[in-house]
Amino acid sequence: MKKINAGIVGGAGYTGGELIRLLLNHPFAEISFVHSNSNSGNPLHKVHQDLIGETGIRFTGELSDDIDILFLCTGHGEAKKFLEKNNIPPHIKVIDLSNDFRLTANAFFHTTYTGIESEVVTRYFVYGLPELNKAQIQQAQNIANPGCFATAIQLGLLPLAKAGLLNEVYTTGITGSTGAGQGLANTSHFSWRANNIQAYKTLTHQHLGEIGQSLLQLQPNSNIDLSFVPWRGDFTRGIFISSTLHCDLEQAALKQLYNDFYAGHHFVCVSEEPIFLKQVVNTNKCVIQLEKVGSKLVVHSAIDNLLKGASGQAVQNMNLMFGIEEAAGLRLKAAAF
Amino acid sequence: MKKINAGIVGGAGYTGGELIRLLLNHPFAEISFVHSNSNSGNPLHKVHQDLIGETGIRFTGELSDDIDILFLCTGHGEAKKFLEKNNIPPHIKVIDLSNDFRLTANAFFHTTYTGIESEVVTRYFVYGLPELNKAQIQQAQNIANPGCFATAIQLGLLPLAKAGLLNEVYTTGITGSTGAGQGLANTSHFSWRANNIQAYKTLTHQHLGEIGQSLLQLQPNSNIDLSFVPWRGDFTRGIFISSTLHCDLEQAALKQLYNDFYAGHHFVCVSEEPIFLKQVVNTNKCVIQLEKVGSKLVVHSAIDNLLKGASGQAVQNMNLMFGIEEAAGLRLKAAAF
Amino acid sequence: MKKINAGIVGGAGYTGGELIRLLLNHPFAEISFVHSNSNSGNPLHKVHQDLIGETGIRFTGELSDDIDILFLCTGHGEAKKFLEKNNIPPHIKVIDLSNDFRLTANAFFHTTYTGIESEVVTRYFVYGLPELNKAQIQQAQNIANPGCFATAIQLGLLPLAKAGLLNEVYTTGITGSTGAGQGLANTSHFSWRANNIQAYKTLTHQHLGEIGQSLLQLQPNSNIDLSFVPWRGDFTRGIFISSTLHCDLEQAALKQLYNDFYAGHHFVCVSEEPIFLKQVVNTNKCVIQLEKVGSKLVVHSAIDNLLKGASGQAVQNMNLMFGIEEAAGLRLKAAAF
Amino acid sequence: MKKINAGIVGGAGYTGGELIRLLLNHPFAEISFVHSNSNSGNPLHKVHQDLIGETGIRFTGELSDDIDILFLCTGHGEAKKFLEKNNIPPHIKVIDLSNDFRLTANAFFHTTYTGIESEVVTRYFVYGLPELNKAQIQQAQNIANPGCFATAIQLGLLPLAKAGLLNEVYTTGITGSTGAGQGLANTSHFSWRANNIQAYKTLTHQHLGEIGQSLLQLQPNSNIDLSFVPWRGDFTRGIFISSTLHCDLEQAALKQLYNDFYAGHHFVCVSEEPIFLKQVVNTNKCVIQLEKVGSKLVVHSAIDNLLKGASGQAVQNMNLMFGIEEAAGLRLKAAAF
Repeated sequence: MKKINAGIVGGAGYTGGELIRLLLNHPFAEISFVHSNSNSGNPLHKVHQDLIGETGIRFTGELSDDIDILFLCTGHGEAKKFLEKNNIPPHIKVIDLSNDFRLTANAFFHTTYTGIESEVVTRYFVYGLPELNKAQIQQAQNIANPGCFATAIQLGLLPLAKAGLLNEVYTTGITGSTGAGQGLANTSHFSWRANNIQAYKTLTHQHLGEIGQSLLQLQPNSNIDLSFVPWRGDFTRGIFISSTLHCDLEQAALKQLYNDFYAGHHFVCVSEEPIFLKQVVNTNKCVIQLEKVGSKLVVHSAIDNLLKGASGQAVQNMNLMFGIEEAAGLRLKAAAF
Repeated sequence: MKKINAGIVGGAGYTGGELIRLLLNHPFAEISFVHSNSNSGNPLHKVHQDLIGETGIRFTGELSDDIDILFLCTGHGEAKKFLEKNNIPPHIKVIDLSNDFRLTANAFFHTTYTGIESEVVTRYFVYGLPELNKAQIQQAQNIANPGCFATAIQLGLLPLAKAGLLNEVYTTGITGSTGAGQGLANTSHFSWRANNIQAYKTLTHQHLGEIGQSLLQLQPNSNIDLSFVPWRGDFTRGIFISSTLHCDLEQAALKQLYNDFYAGHHFVCVSEEPIFLKQVVNTNKCVIQLEKVGSKLVVHSAIDNLLKGASGQAVQNMNLMFGIEEAAGLRLKAAAF
Repeated sequence: MKKINAGIVGGAGYTGGELIRLLLNHPFAEISFVHSNSNSGNPLHKVHQDLIGETGIRFTGELSDDIDILFLCTGHGEAKKFLEKNNIPPHIKVIDLSNDFRLTANAFFHTTYTGIESEVVTRYFVYGLPELNKAQIQQAQNIANPGCFATAIQLGLLPLAKAGLLNEVYTTGITGSTGAGQGLANTSHFSWRANNIQAYKTLTHQHLGEIGQSLLQLQPNSNIDLSFVPWRGDFTRGIFISSTLHCDLEQAALKQLYNDFYAGHHFVCVSEEPIFLKQVVNTNKCVIQLEKVGSKLVVHSAIDNLLKGASGQAVQNMNLMFGIEEAAGLRLKAAAF
Repeated sequence: MKKINAGIVGGAGYTGGELIRLLLNHPFAEISFVHSNSNSGNPLHKVHQDLIGETGIRFTGELSDDIDILFLCTGHGEAKKFLEKNNIPPHIKVIDLSNDFRLTANAFFHTTYTGIESEVVTRYFVYGLPELNKAQIQQAQNIANPGCFATAIQLGLLPLAKAGLLNEVYTTGITGSTGAGQGLANTSHFSWRANNIQAYKTLTHQHLGEIGQSLLQLQPNSNIDLSFVPWRGDFTRGIFISSTLHCDLEQAALKQLYNDFYAGHHFVCVSEEPIFLKQVVNTNKCVIQLEKVGSKLVVHSAIDNLLKGASGQAVQNMNLMFGIEEAAGLRLKAAAF
C-alpha cells in the first residue's frame, strides 16, 4: 500500500510537534515536509528536542504539491490566511487544527487555484469530531479539527443531547499548560504556574460556539444553556471536565445510553470506576464517568489536550478520510505516571 | 501581658504541625505542650522536620491542666472521644479542628468533670467562622473550627446569602494533597497524584452540612441547593473554588455587597483582578473575585487549606476568644511562588 | 511469523505495568498471562487504570508453561525465590528485572526441574545491557536486566572505560518517584515529595556493584573509584546523571569516542545540544551530552527509569534474544511535555 | 525605637518582591519607597499579587533621600550603573543583591556626590555572608549580598576551609525557577520546566568566583579546585547541594567542626537526620548534613534561594548593620509542604 504523504504547516508549534511524533510512527503515512519559516533548514530536533535520533527531516520554508493531505497547525486566524496566500491544489485534503472553520457559518472557504488554468475552488470543512460525524468525515475533503476543551466537553454530553436531555449544564474544566501553546507569557512562566490554579475566560471561552453547535445538531430546537468555567492547571498535558445537570434518568439507564452511543467508537471508554486525568495522558483516548446523586447527574470526562484534543484527533480524522483503520498510528503507550 | 498557654492534642498531624508553626511565632501565645502518644519524647522536628533549630519542645504523652486553651487536632470522630476520655477542666477553652461539633445538632457536649468534686460540664461549640460569627466567637468558650472546603465555599457565598440571593449553586473546588492528611494512600502516592486530577465525593462531600447550615443562618427559610464537585489537585496547599449561579444583581452592586459584608474582616480581600491560588498559599487570607456574565454570576475564592482552612483560622478564633488582635501571629509571608 | 508468547510475573507493580503497556502494542509478541496473586481474577485495568479499553486480559494466580519467555517483575530477592518455588521448564527463557542475578557472582542459578523426569537445570544470567553485551544477549537464555541508575550511569561512562580513561568519577543522579516502586512510604507521599529534593543512599547505592563490574569488564585491572550521590526528584519518570572526572582528551576526540562506541546502538544518542530529562521520558532512549572545561569532563546522561531503565530494556533484550529487530515495539512517542 | 527607613530599587522583580514581603512584617523597619520605573504609580499588588490587602504602598519612579538604607534589587550590572547615575547621599547604607561588588577586585565604588557641595564618595562593599563576615558586616556601610548558589555551597564548605581540609571538591546543585528571575525564556516556560531537569553553565557558573574567594579567605594559600555542576530543577523555590570530597576526619570530628563553626549562627542547622529541600523553603535557614563513607565526605546543604539566598540574607545583613537582633523579621513560618 502506498503511504499517505502528509505535509505539515506550522510544524514548530506544540500541535505540529505532536503531529510529527505521531506521523513518524504511523504505519500508513509518512511526512513529506514540515513547514516552518522561522526554522527553515534546521533539523526537527532543534525545536522538538525529543526527536533527536528519530528522523533526518528538516524544517523547510517551501511547500510541495506532492502530498495527499495538508495539516494546518498554525494559530487561530492563520489557517484561513495561509489558504488564501498559498496555491494549494484542490486534490490535496486539508485538516485544519485551528478554529477558523469550525462553525458552520465559517465552514465554506472559496479561493482561486492557479494550475494550468485558474479554477475557483470551494472547500467545505466538516467538523471533525469522529464520535459525532464519522460518516461525513469518511467522505470529507476538508476537516475542521475540534478544540481541546470542546472535544472533552462534547464527549461528555453528546449522548445526553442525542436523548434530548440537556437543558442547563454547569461545567468546570481544567487544562494543562500546553493548551495555551508555546508562547511565553506570565501565565506560562513556571514560577507562576507551578502549584497554582486560576480561572480564565469565565463563561466566555471561545469553544462555547462549537460545543453549542454540536449539541444542537443532536438535540435540535432546544434551549441548551452551558455555563463553562475553565481553569488553568499546574500540569502540562490533559483536560479534566466535570459537568453537572438535572437529569431524571437513573444510573443504569444512563450507562446504557452512553454505552450505546459510544459502541464502535474505539477511543471513548465509559468507566465504572472513578476516572482520573493520567489514565489518558499521552493517549488518544477519552474516559468518561457518570455519577448520579439525587436528581443531579455529574459527567466527568478526560482527554489529552494535544492528542484527542488536537493532533491525535487530526490523525484519527486522516485515518477515516483515507479509509484506513481508525486507530492506526494511535495505539499509544500511556505515560501512566 | 501574660501569654496564652496553649496545649495541642494530635500534634503530629498536618494541622497540628501547622498550628505549632504558628504558635511558635505568636506574640501573645506560647505552647505549653504538644501531645502525641506515638511520638512521645521525640523532639518536634523528628516529625515536623522544618522545625529543626526552632524549638526544644518535645512531644509528650501527658496532658497538663495548666493551660488556657486546648487545640484538638485529632481526626474526625476522635475529638469527641478525647473529651470523653480525658478529664479536661471546665475553665480550659477548647478549639476543635475536626468536624465533630460543627453542626448545631452536635454542638452541645456533656461530660462529668472530676476535680475536687464531680461536676457536670456542658460545652457548647460555636461554629468558628469569624466572618460569619465574630461576636459569638468573642464570647465563646468552645469553638468548632470549620472545614477547609467549607470555609472557602462559604466565604464566596455568605454575602449572597445575607442578601437572600441564593437558590441553585453549582460549585467546583480543587484541593491540595495536605487536605487529605498525612495518611498513606494510593491517592496520596506521588507517582499517582503528580500531574493528575480526579473528582471524589461528587455531590456528597461531608462539608455540605456545615455549608448549608451557615447559608441558612443568613438566608433562613430558603431552598438553597448547592451542587459541589470536589477535585483532588496536584499541589500540596490550597483550595480554589468557582461557584456559578443565576443572579440579577449587576457587577457594581455585587461588588458593593461583598465589600460591605467583608468590611472589618482583615483576612478576606475582594479582588478586581483575576485571582489565583498562590496569592494566598502560606497565608491566612481568602481572596474572592466576582465575574458577572449575562444573568450568571461566578464567584471564585481561594484559601490555604491548612491556614484559613484549618490551623490559621483556629488561631484567628483563639485571638478573638482572648480579646487580642484578630491578626496576631497571622501576618504571614506568602510563599508567592 | 508466530508471535513470541510472554508470561509476566509480578504484573501488578510499576515495571510489570510498563511491560504490559509495551507488549500489548508489540508487533511480534503477545501476552500469554499476567501473574499476580493478590489481583487474581481482576482485569488489568483495575490496577493499571490507563489500560481501560485496551485489553480483556485478567490477572491470574496460575502459571502456564505454554510461553516462550517469562519476565520476572518481582521485587529484589523475590525473583530467585520464585524460580526456586516454581517448576519452570528449561526451554522457557527468563528475563529478570530485579537485582538477583546481575553480579557475576550470582549469575548462575541451579534448580531441579520436574518434567516427565527430573533434571538439574542451570540457568546463567547474562547482564542485559545491550550496548555492552549485545552479542551475549543474542545468545542468552536468561537475562539479568540492569538497574535504572546503573543503566544511566554506565551508558554515560562505557566509552571512557573502553578507552581506559576512568579513574576517579564523581556522579550525581536524580530519579523520579516511580524508581522507588508503588509501595507507600513517607518519601513517596505527595505532600512530602512535591517540590522537594533529598539525597539518599549516599555513596552506598546498591547499583554500584553492577556499575563497577561493567566498567571493569571494559577497563580491566584498573582502579576505578565511583562516588555516586543519588537524589530523590519531584517528578515521576526519568533519571538524569552528571558525572565529573579528570580527562585529557579534547572535546572532538571525546565526541568521536562516543559516536564510535554507540554506532549501531539505536537507543543511545550523543547530543551536541544541552540535553534535558523530558527528551527521553516515555521513550526507550538514552541521551548523552559531553562537556569539557579545562581538564575536567562532565558527562550528562538521561533515561526513562521505567523504560530504558527497566521494562523497555527488558523488551529490547527480548528482541535481541529472539533475533527480531532490536527496536520492535519500542518506537514510542515521547511525552515531550 | 525609630524604625529603619528602607528604600527598594528594582522592586518589581522576584528579589524585590520578597524583600517587600519581609520588610512589611519587620518589627524594626519600614518601607519608605519601592522604586520601579515601569510600574510607577501602580499598587504593589499589581505586580506582587499576594500583597493584595497588605499595604497601600505604590511603586514610584522617584527616589527619596529620607532613608537609612537602600536595597538594590536590580539585575547584574545594573546596580553599579544605578549608583553612577543617581546621587545617593553618603550616609545612606546600601545593600546590593546583584553580583556587581562581590569580588574584592570590585568592592570599591567611587563616585561624586553632589550635596550642598560636591564630594568624592568611596563605598566599600563587604561581602555579606554573616556566617563568614559577621564582624565586618556589623561595621559595614555597604554590603554585597552573596549569590544564592554561592551561599548554599559556601555554608556547606566553610568549616572545612577553616580547618584547611579542602582540596578537590565535586559539587552538584539544583535550583528552583525563581533563581532565574521573572524573565520569560524557553527554560522558564512551564511546559518545558515541569517534570524536567537540565544541567547548565557546567563548571562555569558565575558564582564560582565569590565561592573561591571566601574559601581562600579561610584556607589561604591553598589550591582548592571546585567542580560545580548546576541543574535546573522543576520547582520554584530552593537550592539543594551535595559536595563530595576526600576527607580524613571521622564523622564525629566533622560534626564537632561544623557545630563549633556555626555556634552562634542562628540560621544554620547541622542535622543528624537526612535533610531535604522543603525543610527550609520559605525560611531564612540553611540545613546541613554530613555523610562520611570510607574516605569520602559528602556535605549536603539546602536553602531557599530567595531568602537565605537573596532577600532574607539582605535583611539579615541589615539587622547586623543596624545593631538589631539578627533574626528580626526573619522568623518565618516554613511552607513545610
